[in-house]
Amino acid sequence: MLTPADDRFEAGLRASLPAAAFRPLEPRYLEEPRGLSRAGDALLIAPATTSEAATAIRAAQSARVPVVPYGGGTGLVGGQIGVDLPRPLVITLERMTVVRATYPAENTLVVEAGAILAHVQQAAHDIDRLFPLSLASEGSARIGGLLSTNAGGVNVLRYGTTRDLVLGVEAVLPDGSVLNGLKRLRKDNTGYDLRHLLIGAEGTLGLITAAALRLMPRPAQQGAAFFVVPDPDAALRLLDLAQRRVGPGLDAFELISGQGLQFQRDTMPDLRHPFADLPDWAVLIDLGLPAGATPETVLEELFAEAHEAGLVCDGVIAQSGAQRDAFWEVRERIPEANRRVGSISSHDISLPLSAVPDFLRHAGSVLGRAGDLRINAFGHLGDGNLHYNVFPAPGRVRADYADRVAEIKRTVFDIVREFDGSFSAEHGIGRLKVGELEHYGDPTKLAAMRAIKSALDPAGIMNPGAVLRGT
Amino acid sequence: MLTPADDRFEAGLRASLPAAAFRPLEPRYLEEPRGLSRAGDALLIAPATTSEAATAIRAAQSARVPVVPYGGGTGLVGGQIGVDLPRPLVITLERMTVVRATYPAENTLVVEAGAILAHVQQAAHDIDRLFPLSLASEGSARIGGLLSTNAGGVNVLRYGTTRDLVLGVEAVLPDGSVLNGLKRLRKDNTGYDLRHLLIGAEGTLGLITAAALRLMPRPAQQGAAFFVVPDPDAALRLLDLAQRRVGPGLDAFELISGQGLQFQRDTMPDLRHPFADLPDWAVLIDLGLPAGATPETVLEELFAEAHEAGLVCDGVIAQSGAQRDAFWEVRERIPEANRRVGSISSHDISLPLSAVPDFLRHAGSVLGRAGDLRINAFGHLGDGNLHYNVFPAPGRVRADYADRVAEIKRTVFDIVREFDGSFSAEHGIGRLKVGELEHYGDPTKLAAMRAIKSALDPAGIMNPGAVLRGT
Repeated sequence: MLTPADDRFEAGLRASLPAAAFRPLEPRYLEEPRGLSRAGDALLIAPATTSEAATAIRAAQSARVPVVPYGGGTGLVGGQIGVDLPRPLVITLERMTVVRATYPAENTLVVEAGAILAHVQQAAHDIDRLFPLSLASEGSARIGGLLSTNAGGVNVLRYGTTRDLVLGVEAVLPDGSVLNGLKRLRKDNTGYDLRHLLIGAEGTLGLITAAALRLMPRPAQQGAAFFVVPDPDAALRLLDLAQRRVGPGLDAFELISGQGLQFQRDTMPDLRHPFADLPDWAVLIDLGLPAGATPETVLEELFAEAHEAGLVCDGVIAQSGAQRDAFWEVRERIPEANRRVGSISSHDISLPLSAVPDFLRHAGSVLGRAGDLRINAFGHLGDGNLHYNVFPAPGRVRADYADRVAEIKRTVFDIVREFDGSFSAEHGIGRLKVGELEHYGDPTKLAAMRAIKSALDPAGIMNPGAVLRGT
Repeated sequence: MLTPADDRFEAGLRASLPAAAFRPLEPRYLEEPRGLSRAGDALLIAPATTSEAATAIRAAQSARVPVVPYGGGTGLVGGQIGVDLPRPLVITLERMTVVRATYPAENTLVVEAGAILAHVQQAAHDIDRLFPLSLASEGSARIGGLLSTNAGGVNVLRYGTTRDLVLGVEAVLPDGSVLNGLKRLRKDNTGYDLRHLLIGAEGTLGLITAAALRLMPRPAQQGAAFFVVPDPDAALRLLDLAQRRVGPGLDAFELISGQGLQFQRDTMPDLRHPFADLPDWAVLIDLGLPAGATPETVLEELFAEAHEAGLVCDGVIAQSGAQRDAFWEVRERIPEANRRVGSISSHDISLPLSAVPDFLRHAGSVLGRAGDLRINAFGHLGDGNLHYNVFPAPGRVRADYADRVAEIKRTVFDIVREFDGSFSAEHGIGRLKVGELEHYGDPTKLAAMRAIKSALDPAGIMNPGAVLRGT
């Protein structure tokens, strides 16, 4: 039974934490960024140290007050907004932003969980290294939230998801004890991997307060190209060819649909596309190569071989860094155009790579039957991760489809399941997909998750209602 | 309270499993491969399917019979030998060896847990792919054991440890339920990552029965070189240089000590070294490059730049595949020479990369004080993983040091702790290092591990005594 963070609780916390830890409660801590949900009230604290965070969680544990961790607030599944809870204690990490140490010779950096991703990228850059995690919200997303949601982004193909970039974590567990897991080791087989359990647990098993992150050598040369492909099958074969020709230098392989480009043309006429005629399908290929290689040449040779094999029909290779940036701008502004059009339902799905073309055909045919939907399927094809978004027919708006949202969502996810895919590739469960997890998740997995949650957080104070339904 | 697999239990199991699942109990199921421990007796079964394994574990759960999973039997920490238990049920996976499916376009393969690593490597090779896990025991180690111990090996620098090569697992949990986690997805953020919890849990949280494994494109070109370095500091700077110059094509970077080469010269005079005079320190560098690159040229340029920077004093670059194999033979026969000399104590340790040279100096000076020890420190420098083995002075044997083994071990591990390292880099805890885990492990981590173990296996039937002391 959870209890609210009432005056008495707050008074106790004020007696044990410095005054600076208490912050005015701004609306962003209570509102889902797209307005999808809203919490009533909260007690907000911003600890400056792991020890202060542990003090707060011990107090919450002892009083059975729900705790909602808050990172950059950019999550897309409502995990950061404590709706339907007795007045929670919201812990924002915004005062824990220090890069504690950098180790260039180790390709490692230790940082507090409140650091913003762009600052961590910069800290790596400052020692001539790369922290490869990169996503649209990197200017505001914080490391703790990125770890807690195991964020993806555009470089997963080469460098993996967030969990692959983490050597160790420091965290406050639900009982207020501090897990000292900040090891900078590439190998450490000493018991269960709690790091990987906390990563992706969305704050339900503890509060991540710091992390030891893997850095990479910075590629000496970068390059990019848009290749027009006849269909997703060809895109997949092109991916295979690129992996064999370029090896690990393939940083990203993004699928772009003609529908997405058309939405851009409709809603942002200032944006320049590298094609006069919009193709049905294109891929954006990005390379990062060591010194000595020339990305333009590699891409030209790839194009020639792919063209001979009938996998590409047109293409343009960036001839400068500015042109590469322009290519990426097209890719990164797809979501913006989507918002301007207004989707009925968006789906962050993943599929076994070889199932992607069949999925697209089958889902398109099922959803297309009614004849009044448009689909923009785009995303990280290299990872089998599609953002599969469904839009109104021209001239109509999302509100016209309000009564069909649930059915459309269910249709898409049912087909995803048929193809052994996942209904949440990189965004997580949060509070918005708890029902989907219960419906589509493996019952054995869910039972084990509940057992682990009860074992580590028997009172259920950590981010209740996220991932698992509160009890 | 655990109970033995007695006649009644066996009769029950025989009634519910095919006769072929019962195998004669050979000594290897009871004896630690180096003779370090021995179990008294066991009931052995070899299920042919996941369902048969689940039936057996349900029966064991219901009767509170301890279960000991058995893979290839090559573990080095006694995890596979159920000593000091009421007569356990040993489950060998040797009849579950099928590659269930290969997906070349996805770089994925699904295999049963009893498959031998070399066969999995071959299955990948047959579809022109690479399964990069590679270690000395690959001819007998089985996938289930490799996953359960999160095995390391020689290619971790480039491809990560075993856990980095696993997309999904199927496992029988301690209650006999089957976790259907065989997803072939690169991204799947739907709840706690049970895959990573089972990997490295050494059979204490369930029995892994199958896995979806990541494959890689096969490097088009391979090459290797031995470079002589003045000291480990130079080796570390050379590693950094190699990573920047070669990028991700650096497959392995192994440190070899003059002492190790001397042991080979003393005990295996047939083995040819690429140097006339044995160096104090050398590194074996291995490259895997995409088409178009020439490893010999890359290595020559690396040598030239390293020589100019004073990082290398001599070197030899393999001019053929046979020569590359010969270089690797020197590396891979170091343990054999060690065995012939007879170590007093061996330590599979890891360190933050930049701490390796200081560790070697400090540990060497502390252990060297008595003047009657020889040290062979070698291993996967690229991963900060050293095999730090202590030997008798010339003319003496390990038995002369029997009363000092504990002190030497403690001295090494204490220094490892001072340098924020790990006392078990790639071998795991098993039954031989439970005391070290209790002594050197983070108490918060241990408490969380015990809570998770109790939650998933309240009766404690799965591999009791491994990793965590039985209760």
